[in-house]
Amino acid sequence: MASTYKPEQARVPPAVQLPVPPVTKFKIALCQLSATDDKERNIVHARRAIEEAAEKGAQLVLLPEIWNSPYSNDCLPVYAEDIDAGGDASPSTAMLSEAARSLQITIVGGSIPERSGDRLYNTCCVFGKDGKLKAKHRKIHLFDIDIPGKITFVESKTLTAGDNHTIVDTDVGRIGIGICLDIEFQELAMVYAARGAHLLCYPGAFNMTTGPLHWELLQRSRAADNQLYVATCSPARDAGAGYIAWGHSTLVGPFGEVLATTEHEETIIIAEIDYSQIELRRTNLPLQNQRRGDLYQLVDLQRLNS
Amino acid sequence: MASTYKPEQARVPPAVQLPVPPVTKFKIALCQLSATDDKERNIVHARRAIEEAAEKGAQLVLLPEIWNSPYSNDCLPVYAEDIDAGGDASPSTAMLSEAARSLQITIVGGSIPERSGDRLYNTCCVFGKDGKLKAKHRKIHLFDIDIPGKITFVESKTLTAGDNHTIVDTDVGRIGIGICLDIEFQELAMVYAARGAHLLCYPGAFNMTTGPLHWELLQRSRAADNQLYVATCSPARDAGAGYIAWGHSTLVGPFGEVLATTEHEETIIIAEIDYSQIELRRTNLPLQNQRRGDLYQLVDLQRLNS
Repeated sequence: MASTYKPEQARVPPAVQLPVPPVTKFKIALCQLSATDDKERNIVHARRAIEEAAEKGAQLVLLPEIWNSPYSNDCLPVYAEDIDAGGDASPSTAMLSEAARSLQITIVGGSIPERSGDRLYNTCCVFGKDGKLKAKHRKIHLFDIDIPGKITFVESKTLTAGDNHTIVDTDVGRIGIGICLDIEFQELAMVYAARGAHLLCYPGAFNMTTGPLHWELLQRSRAADNQLYVATCSPARDAGAGYIAWGHSTLVGPFGEVLATTEHEETIIIAEIDYSQIELRRTNLPLQNQRRGDLYQLVDLQRLNS
Repeated sequence: MASTYKPEQARVPPAVQLPVPPVTKFKIALCQLSATDDKERNIVHARRAIEEAAEKGAQLVLLPEIWNSPYSNDCLPVYAEDIDAGGDASPSTAMLSEAARSLQITIVGGSIPERSGDRLYNTCCVFGKDGKLKAKHRKIHLFDIDIPGKITFVESKTLTAGDNHTIVDTDVGRIGIGICLDIEFQELAMVYAARGAHLLCYPGAFNMTTGPLHWELLQRSRAADNQLYVATCSPARDAGAGYIAWGHSTLVGPFGEVLATTEHEETIIIAEIDYSQIELRRTNLPLQNQRRGDLYQLVDLQRLNS
């Protein structure tokens, strides 16, 4: 019956089959860290957290958005690094690479401000356990918000948006990457699900207005709508900062259920991911067979044109 | 800057401008009613609830999914009505038409089983305050679920799915209609938002498994992602029924905030809708200008081909 509704045409190109992940069950760590104005301290501090996470058995470590710098339009250019040049030009990613290799883990390295030519990006680097840079995501939806008396921030004053979806095969499954506001756009999660993602990772610094309104809601709905895992990682809250982060880093399962979360203090969440739950949920509630490709389509322009 | 990202191309055809609604502030009633195996009683019962809602000032009344019949594959064919034939062939919709006209209100009439030729549909009728049928939505995503030991239901055994998006201009704004499982599909809400909906109405009977998991989550995410109002209406719970409804009829605002809700007993929720909140939220957080039409597109095939 369902086939007359052309469910496979609801994604263009058609969704790929969920790949068999290299590992079914593993531990993820969400390192909800503070960031000070001392970059060197921030790097040492993050390195220590990653090590602690690895010692506790994490095979995948997720860091927060902008963990090497305060989050402000003034600081971003000053703390930015030339990731492509590497080495001394990017001490933050050099540390991530070294940590991944020496601890033999996968790192989704939150984000740092990236300088490339005369442009600045908000960029997430993914390192494999060989220490190699496997993927680089430049935030594609910049955070421009204006709620008078509550929060006003115009990230596009300083930053340029990236131009690519970023999904990467790692030792802990196929991971789609978004940064902060990227999670507000349901289309990105739909694109990643159609490309066979097991897990979406969103480093993100929601604030005291958007945090209570949307942070958990968006994570849970991206997970439930796409029947996959979603992990988020926020900076810890610093009430004295110009931009105050909400915290509440969270892991959500493929039915939209919160599996692990926290408040706003510095902490490392260790939680278990079990990818067999994805197949189970998709069998329980087979949304993928019930979509109406005769009525609507979600087009992934990059995959279509590649 | 944003224009280089072609936000207008993220919807195909491009989203229409939000129309100016005929009324900005008004009261909606969500009639969370019980349904017995006595159809005549169900009709009289619903008529009384609509009248009470109108007396309390509601200009829009929303009824539950399948309010004239028990919700089971056995009952649906027996309680089905020929809506197009009307009159005695459809006492349930005849009542809705009469109530809308005599009370001078808009009714989104939940749903009833509809017989059309040799097919059965799960159908929602919308009546204007002149008593005329303004729109008819046949549920487009049928409810097939199999969670062993919890809930198994195969609606597609009995029913045929509709083939149309349904969005209608009423005296209380432009309303997109979905029935129950239709809310699981984010694409439908995206299509309606792109067509200029102020409000989405979902009559829906979630159950004791999917209710706590997804009912509020889906309503809030459809509202927040599309920055519009979402109203849902469930049958009241009958613990002795074959299919036990979750209840929890709810009104959600355009930031995903729950404005009014209830537990599972019979009740009439009266709540205020203020459409000026839609423009406010879209100014605060201008998602529509930040979508990446250069990276992804949501295609409304019906509007494209019409």
